[in-house]
Formats: sequence, C-alpha cells, structure tokens
Amino acid sequence: MTERLHDPARKGFASDNYAGVHPEVLAALAAANEGHQIAYGEDVYTARMHEVVRAEFGDRADVFPVFNGTGANVLSLTALMPRWGAVIATGTAHIHTDEAGAPERVSGLKLLTVPTPDGKLTPELIATEAWGWGDEHRAQPLAVSITQTTELGTLYTPDEVRAIADYAHEHGMALHMDGARIWNAAAALGVPLRAFTADAGVDILSLGGTKNGLLGAEAIVVIEPDRAPGLLYLRKLSMQLASKMRFMSAQLLTLFDDGLGIRSAAHANAMAARLRDALERLVADGAIDGLSFSQPTQANAVFAVLANDVADRIRERVRFYDWDRAAGEVRWMCAFDTTEADVDGFVEIVREELTRA
Amino acid sequence: MTERLHDPARKGFASDNYAGVHPEVLAALAAANEGHQIAYGEDVYTARMHEVVRAEFGDRADVFPVFNGTGANVLSLTALMPRWGAVIATGTAHIHTDEAGAPERVSGLKLLTVPTPDGKLTPELIATEAWGWGDEHRAQPLAVSITQTTELGTLYTPDEVRAIADYAHEHGMALHMDGARIWNAAAALGVPLRAFTADAGVDILSLGGTKNGLLGAEAIVVIEPDRAPGLLYLRKLSMQLASKMRFMSAQLLTLFDDGLGIRSAAHANAMAARLRDALERLVADGAIDGLSFSQPTQANAVFAVLANDVADRIRERVRFYDWDRAAGEVRWMCAFDTTEADVDGFVEIVREELTRA
Amino acid sequence: MTERLHDPARKGFASDNYAGVHPEVLAALAAANEGHQIAYGEDVYTARMHEVVRAEFGDRADVFPVFNGTGANVLSLTALMPRWGAVIATGTAHIHTDEAGAPERVSGLKLLTVPTPDGKLTPELIATEAWGWGDEHRAQPLAVSITQTTELGTLYTPDEVRAIADYAHEHGMALHMDGARIWNAAAALGVPLRAFTADAGVDILSLGGTKNGLLGAEAIVVIEPDRAPGLLYLRKLSMQLASKMRFMSAQLLTLFDDGLGIRSAAHANAMAARLRDALERLVADGAIDGLSFSQPTQANAVFAVLANDVADRIRERVRFYDWDRAAGEVRWMCAFDTTEADVDGFVEIVREELTRA
Amino acid sequence: MTERLHDPARKGFASDNYAGVHPEVLAALAAANEGHQIAYGEDVYTARMHEVVRAEFGDRADVFPVFNGTGANVLSLTALMPRWGAVIATGTAHIHTDEAGAPERVSGLKLLTVPTPDGKLTPELIATEAWGWGDEHRAQPLAVSITQTTELGTLYTPDEVRAIADYAHEHGMALHMDGARIWNAAAALGVPLRAFTADAGVDILSLGGTKNGLLGAEAIVVIEPDRAPGLLYLRKLSMQLASKMRFMSAQLLTLFDDGLGIRSAAHANAMAARLRDALERLVADGAIDGLSFSQPTQANAVFAVLANDVADRIRERVRFYDWDRAAGEVRWMCAFDTTEADVDGFVEIVREELTRA
Repeated sequence: MTERLHDPARKGFASDNYAGVHPEVLAALAAANEGHQIAYGEDVYTARMHEVVRAEFGDRADVFPVFNGTGANVLSLTALMPRWGAVIATGTAHIHTDEAGAPERVSGLKLLTVPTPDGKLTPELIATEAWGWGDEHRAQPLAVSITQTTELGTLYTPDEVRAIADYAHEHGMALHMDGARIWNAAAALGVPLRAFTADAGVDILSLGGTKNGLLGAEAIVVIEPDRAPGLLYLRKLSMQLASKMRFMSAQLLTLFDDGLGIRSAAHANAMAARLRDALERLVADGAIDGLSFSQPTQANAVFAVLANDVADRIRERVRFYDWDRAAGEVRWMCAFDTTEADVDGFVEIVREELTRA
Repeated sequence: MTERLHDPARKGFASDNYAGVHPEVLAALAAANEGHQIAYGEDVYTARMHEVVRAEFGDRADVFPVFNGTGANVLSLTALMPRWGAVIATGTAHIHTDEAGAPERVSGLKLLTVPTPDGKLTPELIATEAWGWGDEHRAQPLAVSITQTTELGTLYTPDEVRAIADYAHEHGMALHMDGARIWNAAAALGVPLRAFTADAGVDILSLGGTKNGLLGAEAIVVIEPDRAPGLLYLRKLSMQLASKMRFMSAQLLTLFDDGLGIRSAAHANAMAARLRDALERLVADGAIDGLSFSQPTQANAVFAVLANDVADRIRERVRFYDWDRAAGEVRWMCAFDTTEADVDGFVEIVREELTRA
Repeated sequence: MTERLHDPARKGFASDNYAGVHPEVLAALAAANEGHQIAYGEDVYTARMHEVVRAEFGDRADVFPVFNGTGANVLSLTALMPRWGAVIATGTAHIHTDEAGAPERVSGLKLLTVPTPDGKLTPELIATEAWGWGDEHRAQPLAVSITQTTELGTLYTPDEVRAIADYAHEHGMALHMDGARIWNAAAALGVPLRAFTADAGVDILSLGGTKNGLLGAEAIVVIEPDRAPGLLYLRKLSMQLASKMRFMSAQLLTLFDDGLGIRSAAHANAMAARLRDALERLVADGAIDGLSFSQPTQANAVFAVLANDVADRIRERVRFYDWDRAAGEVRWMCAFDTTEADVDGFVEIVREELTRA
Repeated sequence: MTERLHDPARKGFASDNYAGVHPEVLAALAAANEGHQIAYGEDVYTARMHEVVRAEFGDRADVFPVFNGTGANVLSLTALMPRWGAVIATGTAHIHTDEAGAPERVSGLKLLTVPTPDGKLTPELIATEAWGWGDEHRAQPLAVSITQTTELGTLYTPDEVRAIADYAHEHGMALHMDGARIWNAAAALGVPLRAFTADAGVDILSLGGTKNGLLGAEAIVVIEPDRAPGLLYLRKLSMQLASKMRFMSAQLLTLFDDGLGIRSAAHANAMAARLRDALERLVADGAIDGLSFSQPTQANAVFAVLANDVADRIRERVRFYDWDRAAGEVRWMCAFDTTEADVDGFVEIVREELTRA
C-alpha cells in the first residue's frame, strides 16, 4: 500500500498532531531498520537513548519509551504514588479533560482539580487541595501534575516550576510534568530541557515527541528514581511496551542528537507568533474588528475570541477547533510543518471572513 | 539521528519481533506522510482500512487500530464482557503467561486456564471451566480466547475454530481470537483470513501486524459488533489511541492491499519448514544425535529438544529462547526476513555443536 | 467480651454514626438468630425485605443489602454505567470528598463535579458538565448522583428531584440518589420514600440505615432494573456480600415494618430544629453574639459559623466537627438518640463559651 | 421487625455460615451499645482489640476489622504487593474459586494457581510458579497465600507453615494466611494462634470470625508491618471501613477475651469428628456401603464420596453442598451450634438413605 490517498498540500491550524512526520525522522527509521535487534528495549538505539537522557537530565535519570501521551502521563503518575494517592492538577489539564478517564480507569487515580485563569498552577492554587494527609476518608494528595507548555498555550518559567516543586516536596508530594509540548517550552524559554525539569525539581516527566514531528513516540523520563519505582513492570502491564522498540527510540533520538526537537518547536512557535502578530496588527490598524485574544501566545498556540458564525465560516476553509464555543474562543495551533505561506494565507482568510458583510 | 548504530547483517531465530520493518511498509509510511490529516482516526487511510476490513470480514465488521498485541487482546476481551466476566484460555496463552497480568490489572478480567498438550483448546477442554453461570461466587465464564497460530506453533483448522465457536455460543460465551500470527495461519492453511475467523464464528479478533513485518501496528477487528460494544471509548481510556493514526492504518493496509501479509508469512513459514526438514534429515541420516521435536511445525516456529549445554553453545553464536529449560525445550522462530542462507547457516551451527566432542 | 468499656452517658453532636444501635434493632437481631438459614441472601428475612421494597418502590424494584454507604454508592454507580461512563455530582458530594477515591479506585469511575452553594444540583448546574457524548476523549456523562438529604443538611423536594430526573433521562443519563440520610428527608418532607425516589424518576438508590440507628446495614434499591444490571455479581466481586445476610435484612426491615425509620429520623430532625431554634432565639435576644448559620436546617444538621477559638472551647466539652475551618463553619449533627436534655445542655455550653470574656 | 420469620429448630450441614450468632456475641453487642463512640475505629472497643492482637501476635502487630472474608483476603494481598505483583495459591483457594474475581477486579491481582491433592501448598509446589522475577512480561510472584484450615478441611502444622514462610521469604515473597477458619485450626492443633502465624513467619493474616459464631466481622492482622503498608487507606478506599466500628471490634473481642473462639471451634471440630467416626464405624461394621472419605477430617469438615442419587435423597432431608458432583464428593460442615443430636440424627439419615433398596 504505497499509494498516497491524501492531498499533501492540505494543512490547517487544528492541532500539531494533524501534521505528519519530519523527513529526518523517516530517515532515522530507515537507518534503524534491517537485521535483528533484541525486542522490548534491549536494542542499541534504546541504549543510546539512555545515554542521551542521562546527559540531558542527570546521571540518575531513566527513560521508558511509550506509545502516547496518555500512556506517559498515566504511567508517570501511577509510578509516583501508592494506590491511595491523588493528583492535584488544573481543571484544564489534559489528564482531566482529554484522556477519557484513563487515569481513573487504568490506575484508579483520583484527580483533585483546581480552576485557573491561564492553565498554570501556583503554590497558592495547589494549597487549596493540598490537605487531609493521614485522613483515611480523603484520597491522599501525593503528586502535583503541571503541563509545559500548558493546554492554554502558556508557559512556566524555570523559577515558577521550582516554586511548585519546592512546595510539593515540602508537603510530601512529587512533581510530574506533562511535557507533550516540552520542546516548544524549551524553544520559547531559550534554555535546555533540564533547566525547567531536572534542575527545577521535577521528579518525572512525560517527554513529548509525536506533537513535534515524530511518527508516534513519547517517553517517560524518571528524573528522581526513588520517587517513581516500578516503571519497567508498569509499562508492560499497562500495555505500553513496544516490541520493536528500536524504532521508538530511533525516533526519540532525532529530537536530541541533531537538535531537531528544538528546531521544529522553535519553528512552530515562530509561526504562531507570526500569526498572532499579523492579526494584532490588523486589529490595531482597524482593518479587522471582532477579534481578540484570550491567552498570551507563548509557544505554538493562539487562543482567539470571535463570533461563532465567523469562526464557522473560517473553519469551512481551514480546519481548527473551538475551545469554548459559548465564549467564542477558538484555538489555532502551529506545527513543525506550518509555513509562512500557510500563516499568511490563513491571516488573509480570517481577514476576509471578519470583514464580510 | 539518521546514523545506523547496529549491524544489519546480524539475525537470529529468537523472535519474529526481532526483525525490522518490511521495505514496502516504510514506503507506505512515506506515502502517507506530508500535509495534514485529521488525528485519532478520521484520516483517509483509516477510512480505507475500514473498507478493506469489511471486504475481508463482512459488512458489519469494524476495525480499531491499536499499538500492540497486549492492547488488542485486553481491549477485545474487555469489550466482550461485563465486569463480572471471566475468560477461558489455555495455560500457555499469551494473555496468561506474557502480558504481565495486564488483563487482570487493566480490566479486572479473571482468566480460567486449562492445561493443553499443544496449545489448542477444544470444546471438551473448554467444558472443564465452562460452568457456574448464575452463581455469584464464581467469575462468570463469558468468553473463550484462542490463539492462531498458537504459542506452540500449532494451528487450528477452520473446522476446529467452528466447533469451538459453536460450543461457546451455545453456552452464552463469545469467542476471541488472538491473531498475533494470524497471517502465518492463513498462509499455512491456504485460505483467506475470513475462512477461520468470520466464517468460523469468531466474534472479535486481535489482528497481528508487528510480528509480520510492520513497524508497530495491530488492530482489533470486531466481527460481531453486538457482542463487543464500546471499543471507541475503551481504546481511548485504555491508552491505545494513536494520534497520528494515518501511519498505523497505512502500515496495516500493506498487509492486505498488496498481499504483503500473506507473502511475508508464507516466507517465514517456508523458512521454518526448511529448518525443520534439514534438521530432521540430519537426524534420520544419523548425522546428528540428541535432537528431537516437541511440537509439529505448522507455521513459523520450530520447537526442539536438546541438551541445555548444547543449546547454550548454539545460542552463543545465534540468539534464540529457551521455552522450557527443565525439559530442554527451545523455540526457533523464523521471520519475514529470514533467508535460506540464514537457515542453512543455522543448521550447520546446530550440527557442529551437536557433534562437538 | 460482654464487658462494657465505655461511658454510655457520653454523647455529642459529631455525627449520626457516633450513635449506637436502636434497641428495636438489637431485638430484631435476636429474633433472627438461632437455627440455620441459607447464607448469602436466600434466607427468609431477605425474602421479606424484597417484599417490603417492592411494596415501597414498585413491583419491578430489587434490593441488595450491602455493608456500608460507600459500597452502596460505588456499586449503584457502577451498575448504571459501562466502563467509559462518568458521573456528574456536586463538589461536596460524599462520593467525591469522603470516600477516599473508592469510585475511581474500585470501578474506575470518573467524577465530573459542579460547585454549588447548598449541596444541591439543578438541571442548569448539571448542564455545565453534561456534554461531549460521542467524543471518545471525554469520559461520557452517563449518570447523575444527588444526595438526599445533602451533605450540607439541605433537602430536595419531590419536584426538584423530578426535574433532575427528567433532565438526566432526556440526555441519556441515569439518576442515582445517595440516601444515606433518606429517612431524615422523608420525615422532613412528610411523604413516603417513593414520593421523591421511584415516583420522581430515581433509577437507583443507596438506602441508608446505619446513620439512622442500625448496627451496620445499607441497601441498594434498584428501581429501574433495565438501567442497572448485574448487581448480583457486582456486589460479590466488590466484596460487599454478607454471608449471614439474614442479620443485614433483619436490621433493614426494622426501618420499614414498624416505622422505626421515620420515627428515628423525625426525632433527629426535631432535635436539630430544637437546637437551631434555641440558638437563633439567643441571637435574636442579643444573649449571644458571634454566631450565625450557613445553611438552612432542613433535617438533622445545623451548620453554624463562629470563631475558631470559641468552637474549640465548645469542642473540648462536646465533640463535633469543623466543616470549613477557614470560614469558621462547623457542623452539629443530631441522631436518633439525641435527647432534648442533650440539646438544651449543648445550647447552654454554646452560650457559655460565646459569652466568656 | 422483632418478629421471628424462621424456624430456629432447623439446622443442616451446609456451611458454618448458615449458623447464627453465638449468644455471647449478642451480649457483647448490647454491652457495646448506648452513648456515643467515635466512628471509624477511634472507639474504646477497637483500642482494646489492638491490645488483644498485640498480646497474641506480637508488639508490632496491627489490626484492621473488615466486613467479610473476601475483603480481608483481597486487602491483605493488596497491601503486600505493588501493582505488578502476583500471588501463588492452590487451585482450590477461596480467593481463586469463590470470590468472583474480586482479587483481579478490585486490585488487579494476578493469581498463579497450583493444583494440589489436599488443598495444601508446599515449597516444592510453590516453586512451580515461583520464577521469572525481573522479567517484565511475567506478573511478579511476590506473595504466597495459604488457607488454614484449608478449603478441603485439612490443616497445616506450624512446621509446615514455617517451611513455606522460609521458602517465600528466601525468594522475596511475603506470606498471607486466609484464616477464615483459623480458630478451628488452633483448636485442632491445640496451640495458640501465634504458633502457626506470627511464630511461623506469616506476614499478614485474614482472621476469621463470622464462620465461628460472629454476626459479621473479620479482621486483617498485620504481623509484619514493613511488608504490608497502607491498610488504613486501602480499607477505606476498598469500601471495607465500618462506621460504627465499635460493634465490629466488640464481636471480635469475644473470640479472644473469654476464649469463645477456641471453645466454639473446638466444639465444631468435635462434632465433625463425631460424624466421621460414626459413619466410619457403620462402614467398618458393614452396616452401610457406598460411602468413603476423600479427605482426612482434621477440623470441622467431612468430605465424603457417595452416589449422587443417594446424596440427593439425603439432601432433601438435610441441606449440604456437593463439592465435586462428577466424583460424587460432598462436603458436610459442622458449626459452633451443631449438637450431638444433630450429628446423630444426620448419621441415621445417611444410614437410612444408603441402605434404602
């Protein structure tokens, strides 16, 4: 089935996982092919992945490639806690809103959610649910989960992560970071991954890959192994162990070895900034009306507010998602393969539809 | 990371998932790449996969690509049963011996296992555990799971599957087939997949792909949708939903559209037959001694019995697994990429080590 | 061990489960004793319980005695839904705040919680979480759970329950009532249980007993069996099946047959009213200051607000719980065995501590 | 409902949980009644239970009253192991055959079962499943569970338990004892409970009560707390925490303080011996024919073999259970309330039916 069934010219602003695979990743898959390699992770590509992870996250770090972000998140949180643990997260956290109850269903995790304006926790917000230790009637808050960049496209600084980690650790809780878009954060902050993970007190990390140009690979990075035992077993019994793991690791390696992770994310961020800037300029110039922005654009997402009917007309031409239809809020995502021409064309479409009689 | 880290000349007889990816599969991935496609299964490749599955398994069939065989098995069984169901399977079933308790852990499934000499269930064997319906103290036997080809390299005929399906259905139980090596079965039987699945009464199928030359893709084929509702939700909440699903479906399509599934499996089967034949000839000729076979070679596996120390010496030269070390039983698997030269070379190594002073 | 180790004169306002067993219940246990009865529910007392329940809740109703309220709630909700279901409840619901994550842990249930001022859901509040059906990324809202009387001591009228049931059913959701204090509701409303359960559209009910003078027995009442199959099996596999069930049923029967359920609850309600009235009079008279009430007293609970240090001094003399210490909110519960003298004595203590220099 | 609905004269040999409550237990419930006691275990009766348990099982022991045997077993095993653990038990273990899959469903436990002739494990039998540590594909054998007295009415000596404990501990596994009939074992062995539990290396114990004359109470006794953390939380989140726990503890105390546990069990054992002896004498005398015994009678059970039709005729007169109908095996259980007259009458019925033309 080498036939192409789709139109490769067609792109949109719906999600960074609508994009395909970066050519360097396909090349890496081909390089890892042929001959036999031990299955389930005893291959040389996974061994190399361990070295790379230790170089990035510290000598005690361990890495477990998994299939998808939900797998990475649920297993990370499961490893952090006994059966009676609960996780404090935002009300907009992917683990709460978009994983179909997987944390609850697969591992019986209780989520204690906190409303936030911008998708970011703070020690003060965490404190509203961080209580009741020793009370057997309350699921015990033993972990905090934050998302970097957040589901609302915002960003934690290294200092903000550190403050959360300190608070969590002082209260006997571990810190998990959902890094589905961690490369966009690193690119935006202009620091290495470790600056806002290992160096900032994160205990375990869901390291994203698929949203940043991989075919399908994420990894759990255990930064503090004393806090997250058993992942070897948890990954298998939670159905997240790939047999031909060399191809998972080969994908993940591209993100590190040739800097593809940062390159791709920086490009996606730049495209989002270009989109935001162009639209803000049109608004400032009075060229368009009825468009505002509900979140800062700190990485590769633009959250905008406009009338539902206008949004729907735009969507007929280029696909994207409503975020909060009642509020007229939409989300426009850029990916590694979004081009300047894509952005400029979309800006023009937005302009046309906003100015249509 | 396009660098090749491994020696592609090195192959063994350990497992069909030590092999890499068939070149036609890599080509299909490249063809499916570029541009944007809707994530999570609304892409054209997955749509095409639905058509192919309906053509093969019947108009009511449905298909759900998943990441791995454990995922396919556990989700299939979960969909078949309420929370109080139990599954009857052999004591050598992969779901019992090699999935780390995933059926129990992820879905709370109780397995009722039956010892068999050859890895195959029969109505008589099933009957030993098929009782106690309505008794709240007994997990209710509501499904039977068989593996085709079995974990012991043996094969169910279409008639044997039909007898099991009839027995199961008469007793209110559904029938699941773990088809991790289903293509080897089809090639060996010389019939289409449907002959021993849909046409033989199988309700739900774990359709294998990875062991037959894919990079990493399996599928759940729901043949009788009335018996297996909810897979749309179960797949997601069990962490088996791929975001860039076009690449899962593109892989799976290669197995059907160009006949790659049968071609690859037939080749692996032929290599196993060549290995078995060559060794049996050496035994018959008196050229070697101390080698016998514990199972018929009906597909791509050879189960042999020899002294542990001889097996270990052979293994130092070519990798494979002990199956039952106490009994001196080993398993030699052939894959899509096993060559005649690989087989002949291995036969010579076996001969050398068996005849060493 | 027939020795009494405690002081039977000591009582407080902490919880209705600090109280002991009503003498009529002990008498019923003695009457059910001696001789042999079939275990696990095939006894004559359980048979009689079925008759009583059908007389109260309708001819299709079924009853399953269980050990405790958490068991009744979790099993009721589990029976209502497939594995992908979610439950809409208030943020103060017992299933969310006081069951240690049992719904999530035992059955993988996702809770979608809604903040409320008074512990009561309405169709409008439910609507904020009732969406996303068919979207595999969202746990599917398939049940609503309300508590009668609520955790805040408030009460649903039959019409309010009916409005919720209609809304739930119109949207494909079932309705569960946590009736841990259902007898207090019936006594307060002056209507039979069925008026605000079966007749108002409730599908399944956790029928309370322990908080109303039983030793330890609750029941799941299945009002609409088509919506809640499998409880026979779910009860056993969730470890809630009593072997000597005759003693569970004998306890529960006392609530119905001699009207003990209503009598005890009406008394507890009257004592709470007496407490509230006396304190409000003291406030109105200017005899005390610094005391207000945060919820109406519609059953057997009084929610009051006073300074933490005063509350602590009162608590040194008579035990009760803080509800929201930051807000100075405390909860005073009355039980079947609370006497007028207990109330009057407590009012005097409150007065003394509030007026202490 | 103080009315008696049943015939207290009717007794049988079906199960020790068909019997009622010992009068001393009812008296203890009455003594513990009246006044208020802190709920959920902070009462004086539970405090006393802790003292009693420490006196019996050692200073580090801890005790958690629970509702039923399945609860005690599942929670004990859950506490012993991480999520990836598996339990080695006999194929006739109650946890495997009679708990409806609760270990799998509630806690995701994998059971690795071993066939035995007499319901007893040995180090040699355990060894058949005790392997594969470190292999992520195999559920990790981390606990052994034995039943005392066994489901087949047989008995472990203290030395036999010690041999199993040593083997388990040497291999990194913990030892659980299902002591649903532990009092019958102590009575039969003529030693205190500790002799074959704490002193023999048992780590955690399901301490039976209900089958020995209680209304409904079991306890988890943690002998080695380092091996079984978290029961405070596990009990609550597994729905096994009683609110009015004083009545659970008051029941359990009767078994220890006045020696009621041993007295009742010794009586039941004696009745079984009387039954066995009388029947064996009739066989030896040639007075009856077609009756044999499949297990030794070491406690309160008699396992006999006779023709199905004869068994059915006997059963029409006195209730009991088939154990293995295909083999003609039946089980006759004696309870604390079985009288000599009950036994003698039953012997006469068996004689009559066996000698009927």
